[in-house]
Amino acid sequence: MKSEAESARPAVILFSGGIDSATVACVAQKQGFALHGLTFRYGQRHEREVEAARSLARAMGFSSHQVLEIDLGAFGGSALTDRALAVPKGRDEARIACGPIPETYVPARNTIFLAFALGFAEVLGAEDAFIGVNALDYSGYPDCRPEYLRAFEAMAKLATRAGVEGRRPLRVHAPLIDKTKAQIIRWGIDLGVDHSSTWSCYDPTPGGRPCGACDSCILRKKGFREAGAADPTPYAT
Amino acid sequence: MKSEAESARPAVILFSGGIDSATVACVAQKQGFALHGLTFRYGQRHEREVEAARSLARAMGFSSHQVLEIDLGAFGGSALTDRALAVPKGRDEARIACGPIPETYVPARNTIFLAFALGFAEVLGAEDAFIGVNALDYSGYPDCRPEYLRAFEAMAKLATRAGVEGRRPLRVHAPLIDKTKAQIIRWGIDLGVDHSSTWSCYDPTPGGRPCGACDSCILRKKGFREAGAADPTPYAT
Repeated sequence: MKSEAESARPAVILFSGGIDSATVACVAQKQGFALHGLTFRYGQRHEREVEAARSLARAMGFSSHQVLEIDLGAFGGSALTDRALAVPKGRDEARIACGPIPETYVPARNTIFLAFALGFAEVLGAEDAFIGVNALDYSGYPDCRPEYLRAFEAMAKLATRAGVEGRRPLRVHAPLIDKTKAQIIRWGIDLGVDHSSTWSCYDPTPGGRPCGACDSCILRKKGFREAGAADPTPYAT
Repeated sequence: MKSEAESARPAVILFSGGIDSATVACVAQKQGFALHGLTFRYGQRHEREVEAARSLARAMGFSSHQVLEIDLGAFGGSALTDRALAVPKGRDEARIACGPIPETYVPARNTIFLAFALGFAEVLGAEDAFIGVNALDYSGYPDCRPEYLRAFEAMAKLATRAGVEGRRPLRVHAPLIDKTKAQIIRWGIDLGVDHSSTWSCYDPTPGGRPCGACDSCILRKKGFREAGAADPTPYAT
């Protein structure tokens, strides 16, 4: 089993430990890639997300998994990294999905994540990276749109040895890009994703439970409901 | 003086504290920008570079200066971040400038730096970033070429609120891009750059002096010689 994974083509997986990146990792694995996970600790309000990523990566048999500390919190400007801003709670589902760019948008986050993926891919000799952006995100986050990902690939082609030496430049796979949360959850069930081990909440309780009221929890609940699947998450509310 | 800087347009300066970024900062300041420096501590072998950046930023009256810790060392793959690889010493000047991609190339480094600059610019409301890449670099480093910088701008336009909301996307200024080290040194002297406070060495002695033998020291010596200027650097050799 191990030797098969070792001989497989390597791919970098941007891996938060949430439903989306767990599904993407499963998709990459089914396509025959050996998984090399990158998880970022970036001034989030909690460590639960990073713990979930570590234990999922282990359970899924990743070939390697790196947790990188980056200092997005130093910039401020997002409710996810700036303690002076409140994580919005109890918002209407429709407003979350269709509103303006949300407070939880982290400036240039996907560009920073993909830049690290590009560097890691070059060191590994990987020609592929996977990211779990999806339709639900890209209504609000500019760096979740297909045209953004294509522009990143075009830049990546010029940024690295691969481009200069005529090898295939990095391909950024976003297999969830046109999927709703409910479709992702259903796909994940088909693929065997262990949803009970994934983490979504932006703002867990002091006891470590998902709050149930932040945008991410609300969209997770809605996703399971619309997928017609039991939600294994122990929300606080 | 301070209030003038506060009312000036902000620009993000990628600021290592070396000759190139010190010159670029001076150029931006002369163009009327308020300087917001970003320095990265990224698994270099030494802290001298970061100290030089801090004290230069203070002396030059930067409006803000952030030192961000990033974990490039975790990837390996470069003599600048991987302790298992040796920093090349005593190489021929011509080989440094015209050889293949050097061992000191850090995979995706400028992409990672510019990605952070993009996020910082968005938080500051800055539409401009400055980077000190130059002709000497881009013979060897793929991410120092003009076409790479244009591709980064095209990607940045799609990555941020600015692009979505119709504001001017980030412009990446590289005023040294067609200059040799000697030209940069001469320009710096004209602009009033304090070269004695800048730092170039990849591998200082235990006593904290520039080694005088790594590629960066060799090119610095050559630059001052060709500029016909006195080199204020206390090299060990």
